[in-house]
Amino acid sequence: MSEDSVRAILQRLSSGDIDVEEALQELRYAPFADLGDAKLDVQREMRTGVPEAVYAPGKTTGDIVGLVEAAEARPLFVTRASREIYEAVAGVADAVYHERARLVVIGAVRQRDDGMVAVVSAGTSDVPVAEEAAVVAASLGHRVERVYDVGVAGIHRLLAYRDVLADAQVVIVTAGMDGVLPAVVASLFPAPVVGLPSSVGYGTGRDGYAALLTMLNSCSPGVAVVNIDNGYGAAVFAHKMLLRLNQE
Amino acid sequence: MSEDSVRAILQRLSSGDIDVEEALQELRYAPFADLGDAKLDVQREMRTGVPEAVYAPGKTTGDIVGLVEAAEARPLFVTRASREIYEAVAGVADAVYHERARLVVIGAVRQRDDGMVAVVSAGTSDVPVAEEAAVVAASLGHRVERVYDVGVAGIHRLLAYRDVLADAQVVIVTAGMDGVLPAVVASLFPAPVVGLPSSVGYGTGRDGYAALLTMLNSCSPGVAVVNIDNGYGAAVFAHKMLLRLNQE
Amino acid sequence: MSEDSVRAILQRLSSGDIDVEEALQELRYAPFADLGDAKLDVQREMRTGVPEAVYAPGKTTGDIVGLVEAAEARPLFVTRASREIYEAVAGVADAVYHERARLVVIGAVRQRDDGMVAVVSAGTSDVPVAEEAAVVAASLGHRVERVYDVGVAGIHRLLAYRDVLADAQVVIVTAGMDGVLPAVVASLFPAPVVGLPSSVGYGTGRDGYAALLTMLNSCSPGVAVVNIDNGYGAAVFAHKMLLRLNQE
Amino acid sequence: MSEDSVRAILQRLSSGDIDVEEALQELRYAPFADLGDAKLDVQREMRTGVPEAVYAPGKTTGDIVGLVEAAEARPLFVTRASREIYEAVAGVADAVYHERARLVVIGAVRQRDDGMVAVVSAGTSDVPVAEEAAVVAASLGHRVERVYDVGVAGIHRLLAYRDVLADAQVVIVTAGMDGVLPAVVASLFPAPVVGLPSSVGYGTGRDGYAALLTMLNSCSPGVAVVNIDNGYGAAVFAHKMLLRLNQE
Amino acid sequence: MSEDSVRAILQRLSSGDIDVEEALQELRYAPFADLGDAKLDVQREMRTGVPEAVYAPGKTTGDIVGLVEAAEARPLFVTRASREIYEAVAGVADAVYHERARLVVIGAVRQRDDGMVAVVSAGTSDVPVAEEAAVVAASLGHRVERVYDVGVAGIHRLLAYRDVLADAQVVIVTAGMDGVLPAVVASLFPAPVVGLPSSVGYGTGRDGYAALLTMLNSCSPGVAVVNIDNGYGAAVFAHKMLLRLNQE
Amino acid sequence: MSEDSVRAILQRLSSGDIDVEEALQELRYAPFADLGDAKLDVQREMRTGVPEAVYAPGKTTGDIVGLVEAAEARPLFVTRASREIYEAVAGVADAVYHERARLVVIGAVRQRDDGMVAVVSAGTSDVPVAEEAAVVAASLGHRVERVYDVGVAGIHRLLAYRDVLADAQVVIVTAGMDGVLPAVVASLFPAPVVGLPSSVGYGTGRDGYAALLTMLNSCSPGVAVVNIDNGYGAAVFAHKMLLRLNQE
Amino acid sequence: MSEDSVRAILQRLSSGDIDVEEALQELRYAPFADLGDAKLDVQREMRTGVPEAVYAPGKTTGDIVGLVEAAEARPLFVTRASREIYEAVAGVADAVYHERARLVVIGAVRQRDDGMVAVVSAGTSDVPVAEEAAVVAASLGHRVERVYDVGVAGIHRLLAYRDVLADAQVVIVTAGMDGVLPAVVASLFPAPVVGLPSSVGYGTGRDGYAALLTMLNSCSPGVAVVNIDNGYGAAVFAHKMLLRLNQE
Amino acid sequence: MSEDSVRAILQRLSSGDIDVEEALQELRYAPFADLGDAKLDVQREMRTGVPEAVYAPGKTTGDIVGLVEAAEARPLFVTRASREIYEAVAGVADAVYHERARLVVIGAVRQRDDGMVAVVSAGTSDVPVAEEAAVVAASLGHRVERVYDVGVAGIHRLLAYRDVLADAQVVIVTAGMDGVLPAVVASLFPAPVVGLPSSVGYGTGRDGYAALLTMLNSCSPGVAVVNIDNGYGAAVFAHKMLLRLNQE
Repeated sequence: MSEDSVRAILQRLSSGDIDVEEALQELRYAPFADLGDAKLDVQREMRTGVPEAVYAPGKTTGDIVGLVEAAEARPLFVTRASREIYEAVAGVADAVYHERARLVVIGAVRQRDDGMVAVVSAGTSDVPVAEEAAVVAASLGHRVERVYDVGVAGIHRLLAYRDVLADAQVVIVTAGMDGVLPAVVASLFPAPVVGLPSSVGYGTGRDGYAALLTMLNSCSPGVAVVNIDNGYGAAVFAHKMLLRLNQE
Repeated sequence: MSEDSVRAILQRLSSGDIDVEEALQELRYAPFADLGDAKLDVQREMRTGVPEAVYAPGKTTGDIVGLVEAAEARPLFVTRASREIYEAVAGVADAVYHERARLVVIGAVRQRDDGMVAVVSAGTSDVPVAEEAAVVAASLGHRVERVYDVGVAGIHRLLAYRDVLADAQVVIVTAGMDGVLPAVVASLFPAPVVGLPSSVGYGTGRDGYAALLTMLNSCSPGVAVVNIDNGYGAAVFAHKMLLRLNQE
Repeated sequence: MSEDSVRAILQRLSSGDIDVEEALQELRYAPFADLGDAKLDVQREMRTGVPEAVYAPGKTTGDIVGLVEAAEARPLFVTRASREIYEAVAGVADAVYHERARLVVIGAVRQRDDGMVAVVSAGTSDVPVAEEAAVVAASLGHRVERVYDVGVAGIHRLLAYRDVLADAQVVIVTAGMDGVLPAVVASLFPAPVVGLPSSVGYGTGRDGYAALLTMLNSCSPGVAVVNIDNGYGAAVFAHKMLLRLNQE
Repeated sequence: MSEDSVRAILQRLSSGDIDVEEALQELRYAPFADLGDAKLDVQREMRTGVPEAVYAPGKTTGDIVGLVEAAEARPLFVTRASREIYEAVAGVADAVYHERARLVVIGAVRQRDDGMVAVVSAGTSDVPVAEEAAVVAASLGHRVERVYDVGVAGIHRLLAYRDVLADAQVVIVTAGMDGVLPAVVASLFPAPVVGLPSSVGYGTGRDGYAALLTMLNSCSPGVAVVNIDNGYGAAVFAHKMLLRLNQE
Repeated sequence: MSEDSVRAILQRLSSGDIDVEEALQELRYAPFADLGDAKLDVQREMRTGVPEAVYAPGKTTGDIVGLVEAAEARPLFVTRASREIYEAVAGVADAVYHERARLVVIGAVRQRDDGMVAVVSAGTSDVPVAEEAAVVAASLGHRVERVYDVGVAGIHRLLAYRDVLADAQVVIVTAGMDGVLPAVVASLFPAPVVGLPSSVGYGTGRDGYAALLTMLNSCSPGVAVVNIDNGYGAAVFAHKMLLRLNQE
Repeated sequence: MSEDSVRAILQRLSSGDIDVEEALQELRYAPFADLGDAKLDVQREMRTGVPEAVYAPGKTTGDIVGLVEAAEARPLFVTRASREIYEAVAGVADAVYHERARLVVIGAVRQRDDGMVAVVSAGTSDVPVAEEAAVVAASLGHRVERVYDVGVAGIHRLLAYRDVLADAQVVIVTAGMDGVLPAVVASLFPAPVVGLPSSVGYGTGRDGYAALLTMLNSCSPGVAVVNIDNGYGAAVFAHKMLLRLNQE
Repeated sequence: MSEDSVRAILQRLSSGDIDVEEALQELRYAPFADLGDAKLDVQREMRTGVPEAVYAPGKTTGDIVGLVEAAEARPLFVTRASREIYEAVAGVADAVYHERARLVVIGAVRQRDDGMVAVVSAGTSDVPVAEEAAVVAASLGHRVERVYDVGVAGIHRLLAYRDVLADAQVVIVTAGMDGVLPAVVASLFPAPVVGLPSSVGYGTGRDGYAALLTMLNSCSPGVAVVNIDNGYGAAVFAHKMLLRLNQE
Repeated sequence: MSEDSVRAILQRLSSGDIDVEEALQELRYAPFADLGDAKLDVQREMRTGVPEAVYAPGKTTGDIVGLVEAAEARPLFVTRASREIYEAVAGVADAVYHERARLVVIGAVRQRDDGMVAVVSAGTSDVPVAEEAAVVAASLGHRVERVYDVGVAGIHRLLAYRDVLADAQVVIVTAGMDGVLPAVVASLFPAPVVGLPSSVGYGTGRDGYAALLTMLNSCSPGVAVVNIDNGYGAAVFAHKMLLRLNQE
């Protein structure tokens, strides 16, 4: 129930159109609406830029098109989307497809001026996950610098990007297999590191579990971790960080 | 090798005290020292406040006292420390013991003015972990607000702290058992949430794995996770975030 | 051995056609048949509505058709059935196919008047699992209310269905990924919650294990859990609850 | 904010003591209190008998005594409590200690007349877990029948209790090791079965995981499962079932 | 219901004391007793020697003494029993304590003449588990040969016992760590091998899981496996094999 | 054979007490020569019937045909073989294909008269695994009785086969999902039970792990377990048991 | 920054072309280049033969061709490569395809004279993994002897290759299923054994975990292990061993 | 050695061409004798220094003293031994106790001149495991250099030991928590790296599994891994490497 609705009830009471019990009765059913309003208030603080996403797997193309049509938020993402899904979505909304990231973006926001997100990948195989993070962060208005294929097997490749990494407000680092890179970045640069394990690997490293564990157990503090392959989540975490930064 | 040391060598060369080959010889052994310097340069950006910690388990009391005596950084933390270790450390340094957090703090820094860290715990059993995070963050100079025992079983308790949570630059949320609280905080408030699983629980939730998985799979984006019971790591991550914030 | 068979033996003894030892000999081989009868007696208490199901994976179409022809129970379900299996079954029985639930139903029972089962899903991707539960419960004669796509990322969507949820005798809640929804429903509404983890998710949440663990460790009491994706089992559990309710 | 508080505001508005904007201002801060109220409304439906519990591990005795003093709900349980904790609690509340169940009960409710809960254990080693369930259910006012040490290794022992089991509205079955008993009870009796895995076992069955998996995969439908050793949770689930039953 | 009871009913029918319906009524309540009888019949085939056991952990000493007093079977075992438990049991029964096996034996049977069980251990650390198997098998009347500390690190030690192993009807092989020995025995000797993983080991071999997996995946066919540390189970399996052998 | 023993033989040869052939004969039975010879001797005891198998996955059709051509043992099995593999094998050997068991059999042996193997399956989905066991056992010359689709959900179906089961020397019981059936068979019948978990199931029971754990933790002693889906291994274990039986 | 570059700077300072601060400025940007140089220096010791590899999965064919064109190292490997990838690579480099090992080799080095690597496989199904190790080792210039299909089920097959195994400087042993072979080789021969678990197996041995655990827990010391199916890693480890050997 | 070869030797003895001792000498190298003898021969190559060890856990002090008295090999190790065990062993053998490594050494061999083993630890908590490796390697006669507490959180500490690490024939690297150090050492230095995970850590890194996985998935090739905390195994692997090196 919006403030205006409550005010209307109170005015009808004040003007004698309804009595106290009637007003109470109308208000009684308000709390849950209230909850919604309260929640919107809270969210209003982080408005223009609040992301919303449709996770494609397990949904029919019809489901997804319906959800896209119903959603008002912009940007709106469809994650893990095939080209076929993109084409269906493109029929009802102004969408862009990022093939490598398997990501549909509807309505990216205007560039902000609130700092920079570096997106780092250990290998070329991790690029799809890194791209999901990079495209989501860019679509939310942030400046994004990509630093790809700089894994610790050749640490000098990483150091060649020293300026970019030293300049970032937050660094998203994706790695599969041994997942060592986030700890190394955290030990060399001042920005907090969002560890993003990728499911690249085989044997005991298959599916990204070894990388996840390495990141969670990083001896270099300053690393926090999102789910395996969750480029979207890493980007939204970085986005919330930068929003707070702007807000000050 | 510090910049001053390099400059001294160059001046001796310039003034003819040494020749090129001698200068080269002295510099030849510098690169790794250089690396250290370079690293210190990078870290200088986040100086006064760079944390260092001694992890107590598996070390003898003698080891720990030795490491404390050798370390120059302040604050210096000894984590997971018994009172007996504290007492030994207190013999060689000006230390404070936080019993519930099992944490020794040596040389907390002066209060900064760079935003606030909210530390939230789902239950009273999670307080030791929450306290490790809170004391470390406060010792690093940040304003810390504690919001304890506000788990989702009674969500109104959480909402009673709405102002604090809406005001935080970053929220560290610790929970054991089902680990649901970080997702709820992330869905209600604008700050990024550092999920801190605690090892509180039994059966399938024992050791904090269920809580960890819940946090990694949070449907509400904006949560990144540190290792189970790693209050120190959560606080350092928040610290690095706030340092970046100040820097802008 | 049926009661009639035993009576026939006793009558032949009573009429002198056989003597005691011959009767005893005939009866000696009866106990296991007796067990069957006994078991049927027990089951008779919950008759009209006792479900029976054929689990399709690993069986040939021929196997399934044979089992359908042999089974007397109605309703009879074929779970995880392809359309091809349905078409074969439809050749020998009066069957309905629920495509999204991959469920064949033969002989749904007449609507009972014994309370309502609410079937709740966190997301649209969970709908196939939710539908298996909903269609099975409805086919067993119960009133079913579907409340889909009301996950905690937007908790107001759940609260919009407050009346339905407050009215249910039992609520089946399916969720994948973080599996948080059953705990939230249990903390807000009076009905017991059957947690139904779905295999929706990726990374550490893949295959539904994170959701399962969250539900088992729910801090809000009043949740019991069935196997991942086991919509059929959740519905039968609800069915047995409602049968007991009627019986009183 | 209670209904009375809202009514008072409305009456002051109606009587002209405050104007619309003042009333609105007072109500504006109500929504979260409202949420609480709303929540209590929902819960009121299941009042007298809503359980609340303090989980003892990880809390100091001081914490627990404080929580007991603060809690209004009756009955109030302290689970996994040592005798020492009981003695401290007994200093501030009228408490009973159930040693085998490691359970403190404060203010058990009067016996209801709403059906019976059978609590079944496979072995004698499972009795502590079974007792937690039985005492909690009884303290919430339900009639409880205990059927202990009737595991499938000697199935005739189970069948000797046929009348009790056939009569129960709900059967809580605890078992460790192979965890087979709930499936057997579900296949023989009409009541829904709450599977309660116990951590009794060794080797691959250690900690109750084998029992948990067996119960989740039960081929006999009609079993839902709670966390390992979670007797409290099993009893509350049964309690919510019986409350719904009474309500009709 | 025993055969005599059934005969009595039939005789009363035959003699006209009761009519068919009355006889039927009496028999109707027999099935569960029948089941018991039937079961005893089945078991009678393998009588004198059917083992029964009380698993001590999780039971009070009082529980155990009560179960020992109630049990009629001989031999009766109390497994994983402390000396304290033994002493209590010795107060009510004629018991022998095998300290290394932590086993109480009550009423070992007379030596049979039905073949030999070889019990093999890889190392000295595995002896407690091996002894549980050996003492149980011997107490059930079988000839037992112990072949201890013959792990594959020195395969010639195993071969020195060639005659014993070639002569055994069944070989129980216990091993921890890499668990390789059962496969080696199976590849060299004709008897079926019961693999008995012990929880000896550390790191990834801790708790016996590595040994269990090795045994289950043995490339040498002819190995079947019991639970980790389940010396009792291995012995009973061997016992049932030898009973069948005698029976022919 | 110690060096001294060898020297003694050589001296007797050197002094003419024995001739070359006699010395050779004595040396032939020397321990290490024994290792090779002994192994053949040992194996000779179980000749005609010693199984050998080619595991098809990961091998090319050419590999398999080559191995079949090289192997002398009869019967020879090719396990997990496609029809395509069978057709290639049939070009070089007199082979029979068992489609459901995915098994190629070359040269089954003549029927022995050494007891009976009962092969029991819980469900129809388990039949492929059961058939692998049954066909292998039959091909090795044993009498095999199949008892399929008698899972505990309808225990009377199992009891209908009481005579067969009571008569078996060994019972192979395959089950997926909850894996309960072997424990039930072991509690009702005298024969040792070889538990054979099948990978039938879903969710937490997927791939057969829940069934495996249930069988390893069986409260009814007398069950030993082979690897999931290892019908071949179960049959060879039974075969070795029956060979020992005959040998006496 | 090479030594020559540093010397040039120093000479310009010495000759007065630049002053101390200018020299310092030029050197200031050297440390990371220095690191690279330092690293190359270190690596120079093991030059001619330092392997580099492109892991194909997750990369597009375009990615791989680009990486091959950019890499200078010879030999260069593309691992887990399809024939299609090979054909694309062959368009830009002089490449050889090893189909069974799924390996592309570009520029194998000339045969060294530094000892021999034995590559042993337990079964024919392990050959692809063994071949990856063998081809990589041979391409790095080492003499390689293949000893395939000598698993412990027939240990005499292994002993037939005694001379080769006794002669090797290092033995790479691949095995799936029970993974027993490395321990056996280590107990019989003097060379260190690199255990290489293959993902051959099913049930609990599926994906190579059982083999990995067996190898890690080997009771025969002298075994170290690489990741499952990591033939490339095993070969590089052996290569580094042999390089050290030559260097002495 | 074929039968014909043996016959030939015997005939030469019989005809007086060779005498008994010569015949014995030739037979000593005979194949099946070969297996035993050969094994001794092979082992003779690595004599004075062939390690043998008694693993203390699970053994009584009496067991251990007995095994020490029976063993002839020197050095002989007792691993994971308490001081109490040491004192008992010291009563029967000339033993040295290394407290931190929990290792008893009996009869260390004279220093060889065959290269150097570097033992590196990431932290001070890893020292006990590192010491087990270092003391075992030194007791086997190798030169050992210890490089402790040089984890990647401060990589310059590692580089300060560049000369030692560049000089080693083999580097044993122990690390707990994230286990990153072996990969870093392998990427910087030419020697093969034996990764030795330690059980130092907490949460998801507890017990060393995260460190193990990181090492197995190392992106820097040249790392092979032993079991968690297996310092003894790492040292024996290094020992076998250096023996081969000497042998050339």
